[in-house]
Amino acid sequence: MSDQQVADAVRELIESYHELNAHVVDELYEEPSPLEFMRYVAKNRPFVIRSGAAYWDALKKWNADYLKEAMKAQGVNVAITNEGNADSAVETSDERLVFVEPYEREEPFSQVLDQIAGQELRGTEPRVRRYAQTQNDNLRGEYTPLFSDVPADIPFARIALEQLTGPDAINFWLGNSYSTTALHKDNYENIYVQVLGRKHFTLMPPVESACVNEQELPTARYGPKDCSSENSPDELVPDEQLRELDIKMAEGADKVPCPLWDPDVATERTSPFSHLAKPLKVTLEPGDMLYLPAMWYHKVAQSCSEEGICVAVNYWYDMDFGGSFWSLASFARSMGILASAKAATGSTPEPGT
Amino acid sequence: MSDQQVADAVRELIESYHELNAHVVDELYEEPSPLEFMRYVAKNRPFVIRSGAAYWDALKKWNADYLKEAMKAQGVNVAITNEGNADSAVETSDERLVFVEPYEREEPFSQVLDQIAGQELRGTEPRVRRYAQTQNDNLRGEYTPLFSDVPADIPFARIALEQLTGPDAINFWLGNSYSTTALHKDNYENIYVQVLGRKHFTLMPPVESACVNEQELPTARYGPKDCSSENSPDELVPDEQLRELDIKMAEGADKVPCPLWDPDVATERTSPFSHLAKPLKVTLEPGDMLYLPAMWYHKVAQSCSEEGICVAVNYWYDMDFGGSFWSLASFARSMGILASAKAATGSTPEPGT
Repeated sequence: MSDQQVADAVRELIESYHELNAHVVDELYEEPSPLEFMRYVAKNRPFVIRSGAAYWDALKKWNADYLKEAMKAQGVNVAITNEGNADSAVETSDERLVFVEPYEREEPFSQVLDQIAGQELRGTEPRVRRYAQTQNDNLRGEYTPLFSDVPADIPFARIALEQLTGPDAINFWLGNSYSTTALHKDNYENIYVQVLGRKHFTLMPPVESACVNEQELPTARYGPKDCSSENSPDELVPDEQLRELDIKMAEGADKVPCPLWDPDVATERTSPFSHLAKPLKVTLEPGDMLYLPAMWYHKVAQSCSEEGICVAVNYWYDMDFGGSFWSLASFARSMGILASAKAATGSTPEPGT
Repeated sequence: MSDQQVADAVRELIESYHELNAHVVDELYEEPSPLEFMRYVAKNRPFVIRSGAAYWDALKKWNADYLKEAMKAQGVNVAITNEGNADSAVETSDERLVFVEPYEREEPFSQVLDQIAGQELRGTEPRVRRYAQTQNDNLRGEYTPLFSDVPADIPFARIALEQLTGPDAINFWLGNSYSTTALHKDNYENIYVQVLGRKHFTLMPPVESACVNEQELPTARYGPKDCSSENSPDELVPDEQLRELDIKMAEGADKVPCPLWDPDVATERTSPFSHLAKPLKVTLEPGDMLYLPAMWYHKVAQSCSEEGICVAVNYWYDMDFGGSFWSLASFARSMGILASAKAATGSTPEPGT
């Protein structure tokens, strides 16, 4: 076959999807039944339930004071970055693109909240940016004192997805407008609930994988510039020393696949198919609940409440790798990478894993 | 990219699907709820409900005499072929492969049934083979006298698929063991119910499209050898003149895509991927109900009741072209055709429509 035939098939995939699917995130005003939810899962299409979580205790109770009172100085993991860019592609000083993970450490919750809110309310460029975003089932771990304010699971999802023991993870998120989650995808069915402030989602379906210019990048991690022995292991490096975090390359040769295209900077770092993408936008207000289907690419920006914080909770349910969806979506991704590499550079890398 | 990389991706698609899906048609023993059914639709996986239709009037009442009494001499469309091979690839005398449709005409129902049963019970090679298999919603047309013996729809499917006006078509099938339906696929969610005799299904999922060696074939139709004016238009050509039907090429240059691979003759007419296929086999006994998911390839052979007939009913519900499934499955099919053509012949045909 010719490269052109493969590129034509990739283009046809993306265009036929757009012809067959409305360019909109469905808006519901009450929770779907398990069957109604399963129809969305079957189509792998998102929806938002406006005010779907408005009745939760968290929506009624949570504010800065309540959260600090409940959590006190409980240590929580916080991601610290220069640019609010945890887990994203960053250009190093020697012009290499690397996938950078945040500097992570444990800090007392009330201090984390004050720092995040303080940065936001001062409105000046922060020194470093903090985002409590562990995604390790933290609401049933570090944040246990807050867990009783949210449901232990989402019944329509538990029933539809036959996950009778509940979600695989429930995560608490605390950040401000200086942090953005870069475009990525997860192998989970995701129910995302906004509590304080607003989240601005940009969503792209798995059939658009050829548009995101996914490349294999070496991994690195932010770290304090000065790791001298001035501080004992148990003592926190003071913020002064965090003013500019260094990018420290990971040991070993591991690479990870990472989308380079940013739908909000559409003409840069493009793949030959980026111009075909039609990203969906949806903003979650407090109380809104989003179904973010498995394998959808998503970029997430934040706006804060008047207290200077943005707080959300999400439920990850295991996706079903059986049936045809995962296999077909993975195939489309592999072909998109092959077709992009050929068209862009003439090189022929192996598709990422 | 190299052709080898594309072929590797196609192989990986088929192999990952097999790793993630059991090589079996699920067996249920009672009707699923709409939600349970929707889970199968979401996975695009078949199941059979053993005795799922045993309570239907059709299962209690239908036999050769009852059918003839109900239908009498009502004219019905019957497909007539040499080899029991309606709608399949046939090699012509000049060694061309063509897609041959059956000779179709209207005959009195009771005569059709007697001919089909008579051939079966005599056990000799029949002259020509008849199969009443119109697939044009015939149970609500020609076969209306029998319609009240079956449900007007399948509730779990109607509710799950949100098709409140019922199925798109309900079809009645009457044949014998001399006719086989060649491997093909339909863009319908199919509920298939066996009433008399048995049906032997061979099933292949859409991800195996690269295995079926789909080619664009010119179309033709069986017709009586002698179409002289001996018979008036209203008079049936007698069976003697049908002894050997001719293959008559269709006017115009229309071609249709047709799988050439027969899973029961696995080493012939192969594509480079046929050896990767793992066709599923399931036999429907009287009263069994099969969910045959949209876009699955299926070949269907028949065994007869002791009266020498095989009778079934099926319900076609419109499939959902939205979401990602149809677009992704069509993409996989196009890539399979491209990869097969290159590997097999070095030629690069356009994928079929």
